[in-house]
Amino acid sequence: MTTHRIEALTDGVFAIAMTLLVLNLALPEARLGLTHADLITLLSGQTDKFFNYALSFILLAIFWIRHHQQSHYVKKTDMAYLWMNIIFLMFIVLIPFSTSLIGDYSNEPLAHVFFGSNILILGTLLMLNWHYATGHNRLIVHDVDPRIVSSSRKRGLVTITVSILAIGIAFLNTDISNYIYLLIPILQEVIRRRSRKSLANDL
Amino acid sequence: MTTHRIEALTDGVFAIAMTLLVLNLALPEARLGLTHADLITLLSGQTDKFFNYALSFILLAIFWIRHHQQSHYVKKTDMAYLWMNIIFLMFIVLIPFSTSLIGDYSNEPLAHVFFGSNILILGTLLMLNWHYATGHNRLIVHDVDPRIVSSSRKRGLVTITVSILAIGIAFLNTDISNYIYLLIPILQEVIRRRSRKSLANDL
Amino acid sequence: MTTHRIEALTDGVFAIAMTLLVLNLALPEARLGLTHADLITLLSGQTDKFFNYALSFILLAIFWIRHHQQSHYVKKTDMAYLWMNIIFLMFIVLIPFSTSLIGDYSNEPLAHVFFGSNILILGTLLMLNWHYATGHNRLIVHDVDPRIVSSSRKRGLVTITVSILAIGIAFLNTDISNYIYLLIPILQEVIRRRSRKSLANDL
Amino acid sequence: MTTHRIEALTDGVFAIAMTLLVLNLALPEARLGLTHADLITLLSGQTDKFFNYALSFILLAIFWIRHHQQSHYVKKTDMAYLWMNIIFLMFIVLIPFSTSLIGDYSNEPLAHVFFGSNILILGTLLMLNWHYATGHNRLIVHDVDPRIVSSSRKRGLVTITVSILAIGIAFLNTDISNYIYLLIPILQEVIRRRSRKSLANDL
Repeated sequence: MTTHRIEALTDGVFAIAMTLLVLNLALPEARLGLTHADLITLLSGQTDKFFNYALSFILLAIFWIRHHQQSHYVKKTDMAYLWMNIIFLMFIVLIPFSTSLIGDYSNEPLAHVFFGSNILILGTLLMLNWHYATGHNRLIVHDVDPRIVSSSRKRGLVTITVSILAIGIAFLNTDISNYIYLLIPILQEVIRRRSRKSLANDL
Repeated sequence: MTTHRIEALTDGVFAIAMTLLVLNLALPEARLGLTHADLITLLSGQTDKFFNYALSFILLAIFWIRHHQQSHYVKKTDMAYLWMNIIFLMFIVLIPFSTSLIGDYSNEPLAHVFFGSNILILGTLLMLNWHYATGHNRLIVHDVDPRIVSSSRKRGLVTITVSILAIGIAFLNTDISNYIYLLIPILQEVIRRRSRKSLANDL
Repeated sequence: MTTHRIEALTDGVFAIAMTLLVLNLALPEARLGLTHADLITLLSGQTDKFFNYALSFILLAIFWIRHHQQSHYVKKTDMAYLWMNIIFLMFIVLIPFSTSLIGDYSNEPLAHVFFGSNILILGTLLMLNWHYATGHNRLIVHDVDPRIVSSSRKRGLVTITVSILAIGIAFLNTDISNYIYLLIPILQEVIRRRSRKSLANDL
Repeated sequence: MTTHRIEALTDGVFAIAMTLLVLNLALPEARLGLTHADLITLLSGQTDKFFNYALSFILLAIFWIRHHQQSHYVKKTDMAYLWMNIIFLMFIVLIPFSTSLIGDYSNEPLAHVFFGSNILILGTLLMLNWHYATGHNRLIVHDVDPRIVSSSRKRGLVTITVSILAIGIAFLNTDISNYIYLLIPILQEVIRRRSRKSLANDL
């Protein structure tokens, strides 16, 4: 089982999970007597769902990017690594369901805890993945700069910390809980820039 | 992150978005007492939806072709380019929803404005993409003929102009608004032929 | 636009169209008071749908095989060829809808005419595709054995003839109309064997 | 038809079948008057469905891994092998339907017999596939270690035996019938380890 095959399945699963998100936006079909005002009401009632759609799409994209960045250094696989990846994909596929949950039950803390736990589990699995592959140089090439390993770990911690924060805040205010996730792309970009600067200074 | 990986995700997302369009055609299941005439009524009532299906499929195909033509010249990527692509895919995935909107609410200008805006945003993003990649030869190889860069920009302007036109006309006549999009493939072909002729004359 | 990219999109669209077929089998969810006998009734009432599912899956597989066999000899592409492929994919994506039609309206000749026309159009497009690519050796390598070109045309004629036959029979008996399609794999195998024998004799 | 093309279609079909499983988890949309307790009830009522989701995802992953391990040794294809693969994919696509059946009709032995038969057919087809490819070294390279051939057969027998067992137990207790499938990953891992040890001892 080469890393190439795992990446092909991974790309497929991500592409489909991203696309299924759109099914959550479905409106009831207009049959008769619908006025212009009704459609405005219907669409503006979907504002939260559009935000959730964009949020989940971006979070999936971040996981996809990080997964490929990590895979880039992984040169061989074993059964443990393969199964970590499959369990990771299992929770990726769950994202459209979690997203529909915070869309349909937007005022329920429990829905937001479910969504947050999905992100938390994904962040944890991706970190374990990296930890396993890089520990004792188990599956990676030997000359990976330790700062790349460390920068990738830091970015993993961002996802985990933010999702724990979002789960906690869900019990106080479900709206803020949603917006908190925007910290993930922002903080990851900060870490990435710092790491690049440090690598550049070295040359 | 190589362009190869982005293209694999892009192909997947396009293939699924194109296929999800067909879910908009779903008919109610016949249970009992349905006569021959009923099915004719049902199917002919779908004529608009079949047209919308074909239109969206063709527009998606045009975006797919243009995306790949542009990617062909892009030899490296950076984070900004990667995220432009991801936002582009986010609005590609929205097309089945926009299409269902103009199918279910075919007499509502607002639905057509929504669909037109989706096409407009896609056209704009693809143009920014090309602008960013080719500006100062940022991500492309250095010997790309300036006429190829310019022809691609012109074709991008077609999509943007036609979708603005269609949004405007939606307030006057929703049917014509739909047919206007057929200008996109026609005008793009005209520009492509001219550009090829000019390149051929040069040799 | 290389043939490689077209094949990637084609594989994606076929994989999804094949998988969407299964959505036609969906049963109503049991909530309360369902007896053992009810599930037997429900499942046996689906027998036709299981047959339709298998039939459409096999027809899609045949189109996929033929598409790839033809692509194998095509070494360059042009805009006309690209768009023939896209229109072909547009009718491939329609197959899950056509299949749901003959499942939900199994006694209606019109439903079977719709399904048959879908197959007929696909067969015709694939034949035009081959005709265009091989005519004057337009897009193929020059040393393709004329018997391969001719065998592929014959197999194309099988699909067209059988689907016209099935459309005609649909007005007399909708069940027989369905079974007629089984002639496609059988006749194609006969032609393939003959062609291989003829090629082998030659060596 | 190269093995490469078959693998591309296979990866696509597996990725989509795995992702469609999540549609079975869909909850009714909350409209009004839903209390906190209601969502807890709804979600905890889904516990079985979450288990089924995870189980089917893992079984699909196992089939995917075994399919690729077998394909790894297959160096050429013929029509019989190609069609065995297509029929195999046809039953892979059926898994989301079978899973929805044991989710919606969890107390019905018949539903579990249907699911078990699906797994049994898949196990049998994959074994025939391997038998056909390796018999008289028909499609594989000549120097495959006989212990690899035999270990792969043993793992195939595990799937077949366990699914027959699960079908039998379904008539006694539908819950146990579900858990029995967990034996498949466990026993396959045992066989894999033994086989690896035997191969290692040999060196």
